[in-house]
Amino acid sequence: MEILITNDDGIYAEGIYALAAALSRAGNVTVVAPDTQRSAVGHAITITDPLRVVKANRSGKFFGYAASGTPADCVKLGIKAIMKKRPDLVVSGINLGGNLGYNVLYSGTVSGATEGALLGIPSIAISLDTFIKPDFSAAAAFSVKLAGYVKKHRLPPGTLLNVNLPNVPAGKLKGIRVTNQSRTSFNDWFDKRTDPHGNTYYWMTGDFKPKDADQASDLNALRAGYISVTPIQFDLTDYKFITELENWEITA
Amino acid sequence: MEILITNDDGIYAEGIYALAAALSRAGNVTVVAPDTQRSAVGHAITITDPLRVVKANRSGKFFGYAASGTPADCVKLGIKAIMKKRPDLVVSGINLGGNLGYNVLYSGTVSGATEGALLGIPSIAISLDTFIKPDFSAAAAFSVKLAGYVKKHRLPPGTLLNVNLPNVPAGKLKGIRVTNQSRTSFNDWFDKRTDPHGNTYYWMTGDFKPKDADQASDLNALRAGYISVTPIQFDLTDYKFITELENWEITA
Repeated sequence: MEILITNDDGIYAEGIYALAAALSRAGNVTVVAPDTQRSAVGHAITITDPLRVVKANRSGKFFGYAASGTPADCVKLGIKAIMKKRPDLVVSGINLGGNLGYNVLYSGTVSGATEGALLGIPSIAISLDTFIKPDFSAAAAFSVKLAGYVKKHRLPPGTLLNVNLPNVPAGKLKGIRVTNQSRTSFNDWFDKRTDPHGNTYYWMTGDFKPKDADQASDLNALRAGYISVTPIQFDLTDYKFITELENWEITA
Repeated sequence: MEILITNDDGIYAEGIYALAAALSRAGNVTVVAPDTQRSAVGHAITITDPLRVVKANRSGKFFGYAASGTPADCVKLGIKAIMKKRPDLVVSGINLGGNLGYNVLYSGTVSGATEGALLGIPSIAISLDTFIKPDFSAAAAFSVKLAGYVKKHRLPPGTLLNVNLPNVPAGKLKGIRVTNQSRTSFNDWFDKRTDPHGNTYYWMTGDFKPKDADQASDLNALRAGYISVTPIQFDLTDYKFITELENWEITA
């Protein structure tokens, strides 16, 4: 199995190192990841600048390709310019911080897997729901198991698996739930400041205090100590609203 | 009606000027738009750099606020830092180039409206399906009409209208179709080059030769000379696949 790995925390992050080490037991791993942190880039691609790719070592050995682009750029580069064979699987992660609810729209981690899915390759995004004292071992081990399930059962074209794990050792996991995306997002605001030259600038900041009554959601699976596996797809059409919108009888 | 306007072609683009001029007949317009072109940024937000905002003139008069961020940043800034009243409507555009099919995921224009919808405000993205000799008049006039429909009928929370127009004068439009997102996307590849210092770099390039047999799609409405109006929403869950995925009986 040929596996392409990316992330949005950058090629030197701990999470991608744990992921690559684990998945190299399941197949031939190629890492193509951003040369620096690219969180919150959404599904951005780089069309106005050239992309640079350099080889990156870790622990004194060749680890992968560091690219001057976004996770979506990295997946395109991996498939279309770097790998000799088309990958059988794209895995993006392990992200530091969960990717839940509407936050998946902002997520570079998910966008790496999205690009894989749009290019017709089974894809997984995997995130650990913490920013402090991460233990990547359970997520890394689960990525290998899930790769096996995906290989056996296949995914529908254009659908990826968005996986989130609570930050506990494997033995403490309650199990797995197939979930739907919750309707939660960051609550953000701007911190307005003045620079030493007298000019105004703004820092975006915020918090994430999600609530979701839906017991089947990604959020509530995590809260209950389960791994959350959400199948996501990219036909955004609001089919439930189509008939009502037709009844507006809009004219040109 | 308080209207917040943004785009991804930048505050000095022709399309946003035409849009703001038209919508100022429908309400109080506030323009907050990127200070330069920000196409293909997806739903990126700026969290690692401060955001600058400066006043921008056009034709010798104050036109709006130019921000050093993405369209999603601009909408957040407009609502949370610049406008005194919460807007009743967010309109993003008029984009040079259609935003159809899976390309909406890459679209800065759509992401401006997405941010509005996620913040609970009725939102519209509006794009003109051409890159050459654009005639914005029909799209600008239609934005005013559509703002009236949205005000009258309301949109479901979290749903926006993604509007695409063929590049023809208003009199040549065949009418309007409520459509679904097509399953089309760019076909892209990399142009590998060597710089004057002997280093490799890549340009992403591609073409868009879409096909879609689905007569109800955004693409086919445009092709037939109609305005396409697609309601889109951001619960990405693949509900059709949930039961099958549960039958995989994944274990931790």
